[in-house]
This record gives sequence, C-alpha cells and structure tokens, in this order.
Amino acid sequence: MSRPDPTGLAPGAVLGILGGGQLARMMALAAADLGLRAHIFAPEPDSPAYEVAARHTIGAYEDEAALAAFADAVDVVTYEFENVPAATAAFLAARTPLHPGARALAVTQDRLSEKRFVSELGLAVAPFRQVDSLGDLEQAVAALGRPSVLKTRRFGYDGKGQVKITADTDLMQAWEEIGHFPAILEGFVSFAREISVVAARGSDGSFAAFDVCENEHRDHILALTRVPARIGAVASAAAIDAARRIGEALAYVGVFAVEFFIVEDAAGEQVVVNEIAPRVHNSGHWTSEGAQTSQFHQHVRAVCGFPLGAATRRGTVTMENLIGDRVHDWRAILAEPNAHLHLYGKREARPGRKMGHVTRVLPQGD
Amino acid sequence: MSRPDPTGLAPGAVLGILGGGQLARMMALAAADLGLRAHIFAPEPDSPAYEVAARHTIGAYEDEAALAAFADAVDVVTYEFENVPAATAAFLAARTPLHPGARALAVTQDRLSEKRFVSELGLAVAPFRQVDSLGDLEQAVAALGRPSVLKTRRFGYDGKGQVKITADTDLMQAWEEIGHFPAILEGFVSFAREISVVAARGSDGSFAAFDVCENEHRDHILALTRVPARIGAVASAAAIDAARRIGEALAYVGVFAVEFFIVEDAAGEQVVVNEIAPRVHNSGHWTSEGAQTSQFHQHVRAVCGFPLGAATRRGTVTMENLIGDRVHDWRAILAEPNAHLHLYGKREARPGRKMGHVTRVLPQGD
Repeated sequence: MSRPDPTGLAPGAVLGILGGGQLARMMALAAADLGLRAHIFAPEPDSPAYEVAARHTIGAYEDEAALAAFADAVDVVTYEFENVPAATAAFLAARTPLHPGARALAVTQDRLSEKRFVSELGLAVAPFRQVDSLGDLEQAVAALGRPSVLKTRRFGYDGKGQVKITADTDLMQAWEEIGHFPAILEGFVSFAREISVVAARGSDGSFAAFDVCENEHRDHILALTRVPARIGAVASAAAIDAARRIGEALAYVGVFAVEFFIVEDAAGEQVVVNEIAPRVHNSGHWTSEGAQTSQFHQHVRAVCGFPLGAATRRGTVTMENLIGDRVHDWRAILAEPNAHLHLYGKREARPGRKMGHVTRVLPQGD
Repeated sequence: MSRPDPTGLAPGAVLGILGGGQLARMMALAAADLGLRAHIFAPEPDSPAYEVAARHTIGAYEDEAALAAFADAVDVVTYEFENVPAATAAFLAARTPLHPGARALAVTQDRLSEKRFVSELGLAVAPFRQVDSLGDLEQAVAALGRPSVLKTRRFGYDGKGQVKITADTDLMQAWEEIGHFPAILEGFVSFAREISVVAARGSDGSFAAFDVCENEHRDHILALTRVPARIGAVASAAAIDAARRIGEALAYVGVFAVEFFIVEDAAGEQVVVNEIAPRVHNSGHWTSEGAQTSQFHQHVRAVCGFPLGAATRRGTVTMENLIGDRVHDWRAILAEPNAHLHLYGKREARPGRKMGHVTRVLPQGD
C-alpha cells in the first residue's frame, strides 16, 4: 500500500495534525477512511483526537525536539487551528510538507493583515482602522462611528478578544479591556444574514466549493448552519468567486472557510468578507452527510495531493451545534429518523463548550 | 458525558471489540462518531482496527487474565467474527454484557446447528446431511446427488473448508481434503441470484432491515453488492421476514446478515436461507453512504442500547470490494465523482485479501 505516487502521497502515509480537538478528530477519522494513519501533535494531556489516531505526541508547540521527531514520523503536516505559532510552522515546513502553507497562517493570524489582504483583492470588507493606542482608538471611532467593534489583531475566536463600542462605551475602558494589545476597529455592518463558503483548493490548483451556507450565531458561537443559504444566485456566485480568489492569492492547499455578511441595499445583496479560516470549519460540518464529500475528507485529499472529491449537496441540510448541556439530549436526537449525531468524546459538558453536532438532511428539498 | 441511562450506556462508554480487522475498524470509527471509546482485543501484533481505537489489547482469545482485564476496562463487548471460541464468549459474558449473545454464536458457528435452527423456523434451506465419516458421506451423496458441496461444520469462510462434489469427485479424496472434520453435505441449489438481508435488532426487540441487496461472488469472495436487488416485492418481503424471525428466535442484539439463494420456479421466486452471519457483514458495506444509518453505526447503537437508526436507502447503490492489487487503482477511484473510497490500512496487497471497498451512490435511481 505504499506504492509511491509522483503527484502526492499514497494510502498508508502518515498525516500529521497539529491540535487535538474535534476538528483534528474528524480529520483523523476521514484519514482512516482513506487508509492513512493520523499522528496528532498537541500540548493537552487528553484530547478528543488522540482516541482515533494511530499515534499522538503530547508536546508544546515550542518544543523543537518534539516537533523534529514529529516531522520525521509523518509524511505531511496540517493543523486544525489558525493560531499555529509562525516559528512552529516554519520549523515544520523546513522538514516536511506543511499544508496549508505559512502564508495562509501569516495572513489570517492577524486581523489587520487579513483585512488588508482581502481589500487588496478588491473584495468588500467592513471599514477598519489600525489601533495601537488609545489615541488611535479615539481617531478610529471618530472616523467609523458607533456602534463599532474593537478586536485584538491576534488570537481572537468565538467572540474572545472583542469589545463592542456603543454610544456609551468609555474608550479608555475599552482599551483596557482589550489589554492594550495591537487591535483594529471595525465599523459596524448592518447585515441581513451571515453566510460562509467552505471550499477546497488542491495542490494542482483545482478548486471545489461546497454550497453557500447560512449561519446563526448565539453568544458569538455558531449555533446553526442551514444549506442552502437563503440568498440569491448572484450573491451566492459572488461569495464563491471571492473564496476562489482568496484561495488562489494564498496559493492555498486544503479546505478553508470564508465568512461573509450579506448586506441588502438598493442594488441587491452585497457580500462583505468578514473572516477567513485556513482550516476545516464548523460551518462545514453539514457536509459529512449533506455533501458527496465531507470537508474532512476533502481536506485530507487536498493536503495529501489526492484528487478533490465532488462537493455536490445531497438535500436540504441543517447543522446544529450541541453546546454545553444540550448534549444531554443525545438519546432523543438518536431517535430522530433524519438526524446524524456526532459527539466529540469530551468528558465534561461545560457551558459554551462544543460537545458535538447534529446534521439533519431532508433529501427532497433543494 | 457519563450521565447513566437506565436503558443502556451513554456516550463516553467503552465499546470492547473482539477482533482487529476491517469490520472492527469500521465499528470503532462509528463508535467514535457517537462519542464512544473503542477498545480492541485481538491476537495480532498489528491490526487495522488498532489505529483508530482509543485502546487495544494484544492477547490470545484463550488468555483469561487478559480477557478479565479487558472485561473490566469496557462497558459492553461485541465482536467482528462468528468464530469467537465459546469459552471466550462465556468467560466475557460472565463479566460484562456481550452482544450479540452466546446463543447466536453457538448456532452460527456450526453449519449443522445453523441449518437445523433455520429449518425448525419453517424457512427453506438447501437439503443437507450430517457427515462424520466416509460412510456418512457416501450415503449423503447417494441421497442428495451430485453436484453437492461438502463443508466442515466449523470455521469455514470465504470458501475455505469446502469441497465441491462433482460427477468425477472421488469421495475418499474429498473426505481427506476436508481433514476428516465433522462436516455436512449440502445439496446443490440451482439459484438465479444470491441476495442478503442486513438487519439490526435492538435490546428492546425493535427491528430494522436495510433494503435487500444482491451479491456477486468471485472465487468464493464477495466481489460486488447491488442495491436494490433485482428481485420482486414478494421475495424481498419474504427475505426480510425470514431475517426478522431469525433475529427474534436468537433473541439477537446487534446487526446480522442472512444470505439467501433466489430460486426461480413455476411458483415464482423462492428464498432459500444459505448462511447467517452474527455480525456486521461485507454485503452491508454499501450502507455507509447508501443508507440513512450505516450498518456500523446501527450495530453500535444496538449493542449499546441506543435507539436504532433509520435504515432508509438513499439511492441506487453498488459496493465493490477492492481485493488484492485492485486497491492500486485508488487514485482513479478517488477521481470518480460518485465513488466513496474506503481503505483498511492494510500494508500488503496480497491476492484475495480485502484491502478496501468503494461504494457508488446514484441518487436518482430507485
């Protein structure tokens, strides 16, 4: 099974994954389907992905000896989170193929560089200003108005590292809250919907986007994804085209997600890029049963140099995240004829914690 | 995640699996989807299932110390093969729930007891005679005629332990070939097709059968499964009803398969029971993408006391086994838009070895 292939790896190869959470777990499961061995590298003593991987290494992302041994043991490295330290990525990339590459990480780890990158592609983004001081913040708020959102440039996710600037927000307090970290202020976008495009780009430049999906967040955490999104064909095509251009500009290899706001104005529906995630994405979980190829299989195919799979949708799909205690309804969900339950093997259902998800596919719809 | 449930286990529980081949591997993958931990027990130093299981124990099925430790570490035990030694099953069942139970194993491990069991349910089987000696064989051949098939009562699979008795077969030589083991002679059934029913029975007596599928064997090994089978509604209902009665009579818990011959006569299509497999079955692999619930998820649900999932079919499906060198076509298969590739992680593609399978689902068909 180790017959070498000039254009990529072969089944039997070892897929290294940085991070051991549910995204790594689902990538490892997809890798197993394709006859690959997964090797997880993560700092936590116990992680969801360890239990389904052929091997795991518990190590800090700064531990070069552990990283070197990991690089030696695998055929390609990918990751489940965009905050892989740049030094870690560079260290690994010098020793073994790393997909997606260092440029995708560098651009998306910093909200400012990401916004500039997207703008330079000619795609719409929310108005933004760099904020490195209280003075910057005052000027930025004067320019962009209130409401607006102050965000750390780095390491924010699920609403962390954000302060909303409303009419009565004290700017000095907001700057304190953000910890004086390099930040950006984003102007408020009055959007009708939030959508995302989950897409893959192969090492040969091939591109395959899943159908545009619509996302509902609660407390800054994705709660529900619906596919198809309730938007018109023009906006849908614009979103997919934007994702394609982003993937090309990053010379991207793997699955990525682009989140958009849909803004309704006199000219129709406009797509405004909100965020790029250089990895499989929660808003793509619906693909496991709702598409011909799941995002996890697609990502594994792409990073291994295999042909991309068909991204065809199979019906009308919803994906509900099971957050905190909601997971205790697992038995009722198992009894639903159209539901597919996915649990991540996490032992404790803490509030706000993603414990699993459920997809529901209605074949008749379109 | 360990909230106890009066009617079964809860996610977080440990599913023990005897055997480490591809069936165990696919059960372990399904268990992971449901937040369960898999613990494999098998004698081989290296097995496909180890790489996707939270734990594995390498031990002989006769090693009571290892079995006792395994039983202590798991919440329920199941198996991927029907030849679990009776003593092993009894030893484990005394310590932890074992599904399917000892009766299913006892009946199906012995072709003679299986044939008698099926006959006593009033279901059609090929004519058969017990053969314990050359004299028995001569009498049996005189009664059932030629061609007929001499089979060991125990431990036969994929055509092993079988000798075809044709016009010029020397009976003494056939009896030598079969090693003088207790055997049965089966009369030849002139069948139009081979079909199977893969079904599940829950611990609450619930029953769910997947659609009847049609099987093509080459060299006694399953080569291709097609669903739906090209048989009429009456034969299809009869086959499913036979499976239901077999499941009930065995007080069965889990997924099982019943293989049938379809015999065409003046009265129409008759279903003749060929074999019962008390486990997930190669002819049910199509369910992974071709049915709402896969046989592996269904089996895990049943043995854990979870509600059975819907067995609804999703389209016109074929499942092709990738045997031996055929696996080297993996890249071309990955490039087919309707194909789903499953590889088992086996390192060497020996002739006759099941290396993986591919399902192809055409949504439009029925």
